[in-house]
Amino acid sequence: MAVASLTKAIQREVEDLLHALARAIDDDRLEAVPDFFTADGTYKVMSRFNQRRGLPLAQINCTNRGMIADRIAALREANVYPSHCYRHIVSGIMVTPAPDGSFTVRSNYLVMRTLDEGPSTLFSSGEYLDRIVVEDGALRFRERVVLFDSKSIETLLVIPI
Amino acid sequence: MAVASLTKAIQREVEDLLHALARAIDDDRLEAVPDFFTADGTYKVMSRFNQRRGLPLAQINCTNRGMIADRIAALREANVYPSHCYRHIVSGIMVTPAPDGSFTVRSNYLVMRTLDEGPSTLFSSGEYLDRIVVEDGALRFRERVVLFDSKSIETLLVIPI
Amino acid sequence: MAVASLTKAIQREVEDLLHALARAIDDDRLEAVPDFFTADGTYKVMSRFNQRRGLPLAQINCTNRGMIADRIAALREANVYPSHCYRHIVSGIMVTPAPDGSFTVRSNYLVMRTLDEGPSTLFSSGEYLDRIVVEDGALRFRERVVLFDSKSIETLLVIPI
Repeated sequence: MAVASLTKAIQREVEDLLHALARAIDDDRLEAVPDFFTADGTYKVMSRFNQRRGLPLAQINCTNRGMIADRIAALREANVYPSHCYRHIVSGIMVTPAPDGSFTVRSNYLVMRTLDEGPSTLFSSGEYLDRIVVEDGALRFRERVVLFDSKSIETLLVIPI
Repeated sequence: MAVASLTKAIQREVEDLLHALARAIDDDRLEAVPDFFTADGTYKVMSRFNQRRGLPLAQINCTNRGMIADRIAALREANVYPSHCYRHIVSGIMVTPAPDGSFTVRSNYLVMRTLDEGPSTLFSSGEYLDRIVVEDGALRFRERVVLFDSKSIETLLVIPI
Repeated sequence: MAVASLTKAIQREVEDLLHALARAIDDDRLEAVPDFFTADGTYKVMSRFNQRRGLPLAQINCTNRGMIADRIAALREANVYPSHCYRHIVSGIMVTPAPDGSFTVRSNYLVMRTLDEGPSTLFSSGEYLDRIVVEDGALRFRERVVLFDSKSIETLLVIPI
């Protein structure tokens, strides 16, 4: 019961965290994204198809917070791509406490993409597999795996999903 | 107020139940679906168009849990169709207590479908009309009606929405 | 902490309010829409593109509740358009208390549109920027700004988003 009530208390905070990260991306406040992660926090984007088969290929694979920051810097300064923005819908956030005090979190996502010169279209749907920890009194991502449903490789995946 | 606070307490549990069922389907754990229902639990999929006019035609009409299990068995063993999976988004879950101790629940859904050989597309949007009961200390569906928005009959409706 | 716990308590009520308004529209109970607003409540629909640049053009701009009611009456009695309905998905509702006792609320939305003679398609995605106040013990909208992601002007925007 202690675990259950702890989970209830933390559920809303975890939901707020996931929505806050989505909002930072939607608002184009990408420089804020690394701060959602621990220093050793990882961020990976891969297809469900590959993940289920244990295939290693990932579209994005950042193994610490510095790499996430580098990626943001690159898309601001180096990458060439048509300007666009995202809109996140996140549903069914499920929080499970782990023995080490962290939380395993699953949720479904849908991302709309709008090109500055073009319509809004469905860009990606899939699942977030997160490990959340309490660090200095705040919740942070130690791990985020974005499993997208489609098997095809996106030709334009610049902004983190 | 007693009813109001009971509803508040149950709201989160009902939300968890709806998301858990959606997740079982998205995970392709379809054999777990019947256990979300009472033995006399019903599951129906029909168009909003027909429902509003009192027309009886339904795409799926299971009148007890055994029929739901049969349908799952059929799609595993008998039906021939291109392999695909779903991704559910559920929004706006509204819980209303009924005099008999059950709960009337309405929510909006959106289901993306991804063919193993193909992209993710919007498959169906609509509304869930549920009646939830407490049975042996757990919440279960006594009735689920899936009202899809489109009038057209889906040519490929194999997996429960 | 007092502010924080007040916010926690109000969070669920605000969510219920936003979902209830979405449901009224999805149910085609449009005559109920004005009652969600205060007498001086405003309702505006504009592109994110224009809003960010401070450009004034809005697709819909109702500056009080009477104008919202007028607009509903017009679409019932005067406007000519193909019959259709909406389905709302609302995600990531974030509530921030303001010094004057009102609440600033942000959320993401996605609206599917189904023509009576046609399929369901993605109609609009974007963000709701709301100001909610307590009036006579109930929550009401003093302001709603619907910022849609796409730059293009919708040719058929009849029903409020």
